[in-house]
Amino acid sequence: MATAGKVIKCRAAVAWGPNRPLVMEEIEVAPPEAHEIRIKIFVTAVCHTDLYFLYERGRGEGFPAVLGHEGAGTVESVGPGVTRFKPGDTVVPLFVSQCRECRFCRNPSTNQCDKSWSSQRPGKRLEVSSDTTSRLRCRGQTLLQYMGTSTFSEYTVVKEIAAAKIPDSAPLDKACLLGCGVTTGYGAAVNTAKVEPGSTCAVFGLGAVGLAAVMGCKAAGASRIFAVDVNKDKFQKAKLFGATDFVNPKDHDKPVSQVLAEMTNGGVDFALECVGNVEVMRSALESCVKGWGVSVLTGYNDSQDVSARCLQFLAGRTLKGSLFGGYKSVESVPKLVSDVMTGKLQLDEFVTKTLPLDQINEAFDLMTNSEGIRTVLKVSTL
Amino acid sequence: MATAGKVIKCRAAVAWGPNRPLVMEEIEVAPPEAHEIRIKIFVTAVCHTDLYFLYERGRGEGFPAVLGHEGAGTVESVGPGVTRFKPGDTVVPLFVSQCRECRFCRNPSTNQCDKSWSSQRPGKRLEVSSDTTSRLRCRGQTLLQYMGTSTFSEYTVVKEIAAAKIPDSAPLDKACLLGCGVTTGYGAAVNTAKVEPGSTCAVFGLGAVGLAAVMGCKAAGASRIFAVDVNKDKFQKAKLFGATDFVNPKDHDKPVSQVLAEMTNGGVDFALECVGNVEVMRSALESCVKGWGVSVLTGYNDSQDVSARCLQFLAGRTLKGSLFGGYKSVESVPKLVSDVMTGKLQLDEFVTKTLPLDQINEAFDLMTNSEGIRTVLKVSTL
Repeated sequence: MATAGKVIKCRAAVAWGPNRPLVMEEIEVAPPEAHEIRIKIFVTAVCHTDLYFLYERGRGEGFPAVLGHEGAGTVESVGPGVTRFKPGDTVVPLFVSQCRECRFCRNPSTNQCDKSWSSQRPGKRLEVSSDTTSRLRCRGQTLLQYMGTSTFSEYTVVKEIAAAKIPDSAPLDKACLLGCGVTTGYGAAVNTAKVEPGSTCAVFGLGAVGLAAVMGCKAAGASRIFAVDVNKDKFQKAKLFGATDFVNPKDHDKPVSQVLAEMTNGGVDFALECVGNVEVMRSALESCVKGWGVSVLTGYNDSQDVSARCLQFLAGRTLKGSLFGGYKSVESVPKLVSDVMTGKLQLDEFVTKTLPLDQINEAFDLMTNSEGIRTVLKVSTL
Repeated sequence: MATAGKVIKCRAAVAWGPNRPLVMEEIEVAPPEAHEIRIKIFVTAVCHTDLYFLYERGRGEGFPAVLGHEGAGTVESVGPGVTRFKPGDTVVPLFVSQCRECRFCRNPSTNQCDKSWSSQRPGKRLEVSSDTTSRLRCRGQTLLQYMGTSTFSEYTVVKEIAAAKIPDSAPLDKACLLGCGVTTGYGAAVNTAKVEPGSTCAVFGLGAVGLAAVMGCKAAGASRIFAVDVNKDKFQKAKLFGATDFVNPKDHDKPVSQVLAEMTNGGVDFALECVGNVEVMRSALESCVKGWGVSVLTGYNDSQDVSARCLQFLAGRTLKGSLFGGYKSVESVPKLVSDVMTGKLQLDEFVTKTLPLDQINEAFDLMTNSEGIRTVLKVSTL
């Protein structure tokens, strides 16, 4: 490509600081360095974690940055030593890498990768790259890269190990959802919780992650799937994905865990927290049956700790977490894309709005107001 | 027996209120009711949970009571409908019952029993029986039964489903330890954590539960067993049981989790919390390696919640709890007693002092001062 090896000037939505709307800016995207690839982003979706980082976290570190981690596009150019990709490949950037070499990648029981952006910053709570590993600049400043991806930009640079190659014919407006939300929820049910046939499940929070979790519970053969949300408008969609029972905590004057215990003879076998709220994480654990109940949290929250009574654990409950649904990213996303293309995974219902990147703040507003599931932003054209 | 069907007057150590030494009293023990057995206690040991309830919990409910839950003795008489026992049987009272009929007993993955004393008091934090289920009285008052057992008494009454029959020839001063501490620690390692051969383990707290956990880790084939305690005097004994490395948090100016991470390339595979302190529970979880680390808490604490960063779970760590080491009580204690009798389980080192029941407060003092492991109290003679 004519742009290879050169700095690309392009449009991006820049987060200059917390609690401020994103600003469309012309930014500079440096060429990829060793084992990096530069991607032209076509579509990206807005995930709650982006919203959390910008508006809910309440801290100032990590700015200015380019957010966004649910994207899809094509490789514009590759850096030295890149073997997995060539220009023109269709890809989904990944916030969890898979180097295939570290002891975590070699262990089948985990999808953590020791070469992930996050592993490079031990002890840090920031979800952003360091100054030296970001390839994005604007107005003379480095723009930190969020979750190693930064898909709210026409171009971005990611590590070679942090992208999945998918078919050129894949529907990118769906494939981008596999970059985080859908994969996280679906995998939390089937991989992390390991939902069993005939079991009872409760899914807390019916955003994209929660709906995907409902879908995962159904695929795993759960006999009852309790959909829990304070917004009853979400129940209709949850039903489409397989939820059998619906609980709005606002309708009850007792804790939701007690409501579920009464509906299930003591609690559900599996609970999935898909909100990122520590009180909900606590409720989800408490909603599990003693003896063998497993609660899986998927939401990210570094402002508050998750807490529970010791007795919850002594009584036989287990608390786990699911990052990217437990999927080894590079090898799994192409399979999930294939499932979408064959109709096994139905993602149409997740996309409730399509907007141009310029209107990204409207997408944030929709999410803040719990309107719709996912807004897909058209970033550039093929 | 001549006492069958009659109220027995006998000696017991009564807990009249929190933060007060026990008082030796003459108490009245009613005959066993339906499906209950009355036991003549020969020996009992003092467990940290007794100490916690009396001196550390900081609440007034649950008194007056007779504490004690690590005992051994013989059946004096049986109530109507009892089929599992006859007078003269040698038994270990159990604070976790096994009815063999409820859905928990029928499920091989848990040792919770729906007919346990605790299950009968849903939502309560008290570790004691209700007034109506206690058979003990003193000075005109009902003495609540602690953990359904109350072994600090010459006689006590327990449910038929809450006692294990063991050989008459069993060494009772060791068998009583299988009523809680040793079983809890050993089982937490082999049953709940499911320690794997070649793995790295860390055991936090080197009391009886911790030392038994060390023993369990060794039996499971762990390659390195880190013994963690703020009292370095405990390390020698931990070494006897199989610990390979020793960490005193006081020797370091950084968190113990970081010390262990540096000693193990990122953390241990399995952590076992054997203290009952929520900060230690947090440390134990943080000491686990990301990806697959499993932390098991065994300590009981209803005063404070256990807390952790969400990221600990998202990074692949699991938090579980172990009650009575995950052992189905009635069927497992006899097997463990058999292991003691054949020398497979070596419990001699656990008994560091023997005293008459009259001197029970000295046993509490020894535990408060971390002197020795277990004091066995001789309650009555054969």
